[in-house]
Amino acid sequence: MRILIDMNGLDDGYRPILEAAAYMRSEPEIQITLIGKPDAEKMSREASIPFIVAEEEISTQEKNPAFAIRQKKNSSIVKGLMALREGEFDVFLSGGSTGALLAGGMVIVGRLSGYPRAVLLAPMPTTSKTTYLLDVGANVDVTPDMLVSFAKCAIAYVQATTGKDRPTLRLLNNGIEEQKGSELTKQAYALLQASHLPFDGNIEARDIFTGVCDIVITDGFTGNAVLKTSEGVFRFIMQMLKGLKETSWRAKLGLYLLKRDLKRTLRDLDPSTFGAVPLLGLNKIVMKMHGNSSTEAVIASIQSALRVHKSDILDRMRKQEE
Amino acid sequence: MRILIDMNGLDDGYRPILEAAAYMRSEPEIQITLIGKPDAEKMSREASIPFIVAEEEISTQEKNPAFAIRQKKNSSIVKGLMALREGEFDVFLSGGSTGALLAGGMVIVGRLSGYPRAVLLAPMPTTSKTTYLLDVGANVDVTPDMLVSFAKCAIAYVQATTGKDRPTLRLLNNGIEEQKGSELTKQAYALLQASHLPFDGNIEARDIFTGVCDIVITDGFTGNAVLKTSEGVFRFIMQMLKGLKETSWRAKLGLYLLKRDLKRTLRDLDPSTFGAVPLLGLNKIVMKMHGNSSTEAVIASIQSALRVHKSDILDRMRKQEE
Repeated sequence: MRILIDMNGLDDGYRPILEAAAYMRSEPEIQITLIGKPDAEKMSREASIPFIVAEEEISTQEKNPAFAIRQKKNSSIVKGLMALREGEFDVFLSGGSTGALLAGGMVIVGRLSGYPRAVLLAPMPTTSKTTYLLDVGANVDVTPDMLVSFAKCAIAYVQATTGKDRPTLRLLNNGIEEQKGSELTKQAYALLQASHLPFDGNIEARDIFTGVCDIVITDGFTGNAVLKTSEGVFRFIMQMLKGLKETSWRAKLGLYLLKRDLKRTLRDLDPSTFGAVPLLGLNKIVMKMHGNSSTEAVIASIQSALRVHKSDILDRMRKQEE
Repeated sequence: MRILIDMNGLDDGYRPILEAAAYMRSEPEIQITLIGKPDAEKMSREASIPFIVAEEEISTQEKNPAFAIRQKKNSSIVKGLMALREGEFDVFLSGGSTGALLAGGMVIVGRLSGYPRAVLLAPMPTTSKTTYLLDVGANVDVTPDMLVSFAKCAIAYVQATTGKDRPTLRLLNNGIEEQKGSELTKQAYALLQASHLPFDGNIEARDIFTGVCDIVITDGFTGNAVLKTSEGVFRFIMQMLKGLKETSWRAKLGLYLLKRDLKRTLRDLDPSTFGAVPLLGLNKIVMKMHGNSSTEAVIASIQSALRVHKSDILDRMRKQEE
């Protein structure tokens, strides 16, 4: 796998990427190239990692990513996606602006035939396995048939990366009954029901975390709200737990004893350790990793990229459309 | 306050309501009447609490609440709302089907002039105070001006019940920038911005739990997903905490020591202890309590009802519309 990694976009700067690239250098299946601003070139060369200079950067705070893609021709994202399109690399991996990767992916790399949009999935921790939620923010206004297309993307992804033949699929709704929901979900329900997809009906948001299915489909607005709510509640409870220290000596000692095991479990749940996920619906492999990825998370992301690269996901997605 | 309480709809049956009614009987400001099926009449009479017989029940699992309202004329919800409309009571309190209360509220009790829909708000626990989220399920397909009407409802409610003069208000969105969002939220943003309401801009779902504002406005589909996600994540983390018992003796002992204080804090966060909330937008006071309300929760709900009854909320809402 020839992978091109964006040096921009991580909260911790260049370090996690340089360390991960150095660590993975000896892997025979992986050839890493980095792309970024001139100040990163020297560090990369010193570590004997090939480097492409991209003078500009599209900020993760960029408010109009589609515009930035047109303006910043020398950004790592635009140059990186162009090199991917030209076949110089198999995968482009970035922790940068999701909006810019999506806009650039659509404009520069192009869509897979039959897939109207690129879509972003998020792995959600559950009590039994990982459940993929999508879309989580790429497409806020969608039509029922786009939801079906999201379902096809996700099924191909889970099949290709886990080997599971028939991943289970549900539609996020405000009740489990068929007649429940908005106009959008009612129509999507009918389309999914009539399709050949392994559709198991509606799911309410509270049940996502029980691992009852592999894939939960929703529009990007709701998916984004679900993802961010789960982050918010998680932080809230952790803060509440910490606050118990002040309530009694028993609680303080209890927390002290619990700390080590709790930390280990929380690390397993942290989305930044899950590795990168692909933007599905594009005709090349563009992987997005979390902005606060650590060195371990970048390594996990490169491994995810290898798994996706070695899978037959793009073929599967083309076949889903036949 | 002459309050009529629905005997149907609670997970724990009649007991919490009978106990709460007996407990509150001596309150000089409160006259409680119960309404329910014949089998509850004897218990109510034995406790010297006035009782109205309603032969039928609309199940909380009712799939078509609007239809049930037309069919079950002798249900506690239909008869109760009719008695409320006729002025026989000041408040109707129920833990039954939210859909039936909303449909019945609109059809039997009627809307406040200027308010197109009845809306359901949910108190969300935060690190500093309670934040009200609405709509959480009454209206899944909404227009931008409905969101403005939800805002007016919530402002009147917070003003009337907390005495806070200028509650702070935000719009739930997938980013905080003005130009972010779906067609719905972009248009609602412009309307809210142009209004005289105390609008502080967008909020992302993860920040609801930090107590940064009093009111968060959204459509009923997204609000429902946010509410249920928070329940799901909460359950998930509690299960994860319990599971730590198995990881080491340290963790097991830690959990044992933590238990008492954790339980107390969790009880404060439990939505079923928050008391009832009104269905806003109706021209009478209809209060909905949680289906799994305990005796304490029913008492809290009667107290909420008294607070709402003694407030000037309906007048405020009428005035908002002038």
